Amino acid sequence: MLYLVGLGLHDEKDVTVRGKEAIEQSSRVYLEAYTSILGVGKERLEEFYGKEIIVADRDMVETDSDAILKDADKVDVAFLVVGDPFGATTHADLLLRADDLSVPYVVIHNASVMNAVGALGLALYNYGQTVSIPFFTDSWRPDSWLERVRENARLGLHTLCLLDIKVKEQSEENLARGRKIYEPPRYMSVPTAISQLLSLLPPDLTSSSYSPDAPVPQPDVLDPHTTLAISASRVGHPSQTFVSGTLAELATLDEERFGGPLHSFVIVGRTFHALERDFARRWAVDPQRWDEVSKKVYAVRD
Amino acid sequence: MLYLVGLGLHDEKDVTVRGKEAIEQSSRVYLEAYTSILGVGKERLEEFYGKEIIVADRDMVETDSDAILKDADKVDVAFLVVGDPFGATTHADLLLRADDLSVPYVVIHNASVMNAVGALGLALYNYGQTVSIPFFTDSWRPDSWLERVRENARLGLHTLCLLDIKVKEQSEENLARGRKIYEPPRYMSVPTAISQLLSLLPPDLTSSSYSPDAPVPQPDVLDPHTTLAISASRVGHPSQTFVSGTLAELATLDEERFGGPLHSFVIVGRTFHALERDFARRWAVDPQRWDEVSKKVYAVRD
Repeated sequence: MLYLVGLGLHDEKDVTVRGKEAIEQSSRVYLEAYTSILGVGKERLEEFYGKEIIVADRDMVETDSDAILKDADKVDVAFLVVGDPFGATTHADLLLRADDLSVPYVVIHNASVMNAVGALGLALYNYGQTVSIPFFTDSWRPDSWLERVRENARLGLHTLCLLDIKVKEQSEENLARGRKIYEPPRYMSVPTAISQLLSLLPPDLTSSSYSPDAPVPQPDVLDPHTTLAISASRVGHPSQTFVSGTLAELATLDEERFGGPLHSFVIVGRTFHALERDFARRWAVDPQRWDEVSKKVYAVRD
Repeated sequence: MLYLVGLGLHDEKDVTVRGKEAIEQSSRVYLEAYTSILGVGKERLEEFYGKEIIVADRDMVETDSDAILKDADKVDVAFLVVGDPFGATTHADLLLRADDLSVPYVVIHNASVMNAVGALGLALYNYGQTVSIPFFTDSWRPDSWLERVRENARLGLHTLCLLDIKVKEQSEENLARGRKIYEPPRYMSVPTAISQLLSLLPPDLTSSSYSPDAPVPQPDVLDPHTTLAISASRVGHPSQTFVSGTLAELATLDEERFGGPLHSFVIVGRTFHALERDFARRWAVDPQRWDEVSKKVYAVRD
């Protein structure tokens, strides 16, 4: 049997009781290590489960899945994924291959950022599609995700924005010389992500300042002074940090204010209501501005 | 400390190790019992946690939250929610009240249907807003959710449709007489939900039959013969059941084919791709039709 086990969001104790039992009875245990990070190292997991863990990087999962599935029709194999097994990647390739080899599988679900973001207090029903914001470079500024945000905004929906992580990246020189030397991991911060977003907007929007008497812009304009957002760092960790404010406010805060990686943030859609406003006001950069924009721009009524 | 503990989707073992520890150290344990159901009764939870559980119905949570929060600044109190604590309801009222009373709280996340639906193999990024389909009566046929489905469909997005449950409902007579006698619980099935959906479409659409040579309709037409859907019953339970097909196919299947409640289903958006088609073909009512509609209507290319 192949067990796909979600590890949840923080440390070794976020596995479910069912998941822990599956790991303990498995002959081999793999840890998928390319789509997210846990707050602890693999040694701590090994000690807690009493099992040696084999780290499976993207290469291994995508090109050598038969090694993972070897004999899994006869013995139990556990494949661990941070968050939920279907959160960032569906692992459909691996599971279809399991079917080909007549390996039965069981999925043991867990929380992922896709549902734990509910902790911000915005109803999960009112989220639209999720976007990933990639690191810009001097020559590459992909922006298709911005249209997804606008599509959500036009419907009044919230957008969960997941931020790029760079792990096991090689410098151009090392890549050219074929040296498997990797750069230190990089995690995009909320101010970086929002600054990238603002750099794609018309300059007159970003150069203007907040003006309480200006007409209410259409939601898909994403006016930085009247578009509300809530950041969520390390959701589900004891050190999780939430900050709420306008895009302009969050873009200019110090990175430290948002806590450690991974960072994400939500662009608030116009289906915003009074209880949600009150819930998120507790993390507001400027609670008075938060209420003012909620009332005037988001038409929140008590 | 107030612990909001997600119980996950199936039974007592779907709690996380961290959640179980929080329950075991709590002086009082409440189980929120109005938004979803677990596959086991509270007795089994009580035995597993070694704790007496107080069932908190909607009335109690909404009007008597101070009883739940009593002394929680001094002792630990656990509030258990099926799925994730923020899945169906944000519990913002309860948590704001905890703040008022200076009761600190910790959220222990878990899987909910909102992310476990990833098991169907459709990328979670490409889901739009979630809808709830209510039971129709002779005189009340609310249909605002249908426009939400259409909004998603226009953007190529999938829609997770959650189906109504009726628990603790009184008959009109018992209600009129003030008798607290409740009807047996009712859970909406996939064929009922899709039949309700089809009843809202123009009659010529639902009376026509599948025709491979017809022009491809706009996605928001929701043509029952060329709109794909995947049902998901008891996601995360050992008895979970998935069925894929056109809306017309799923509407006419026997209820038993979908397994026990709770049922839900996903209306597939046009951002559908080959790996997703292959993954869900394994549950298809008619695999050949599945592939044909995927190719012709959804433009899925290999």
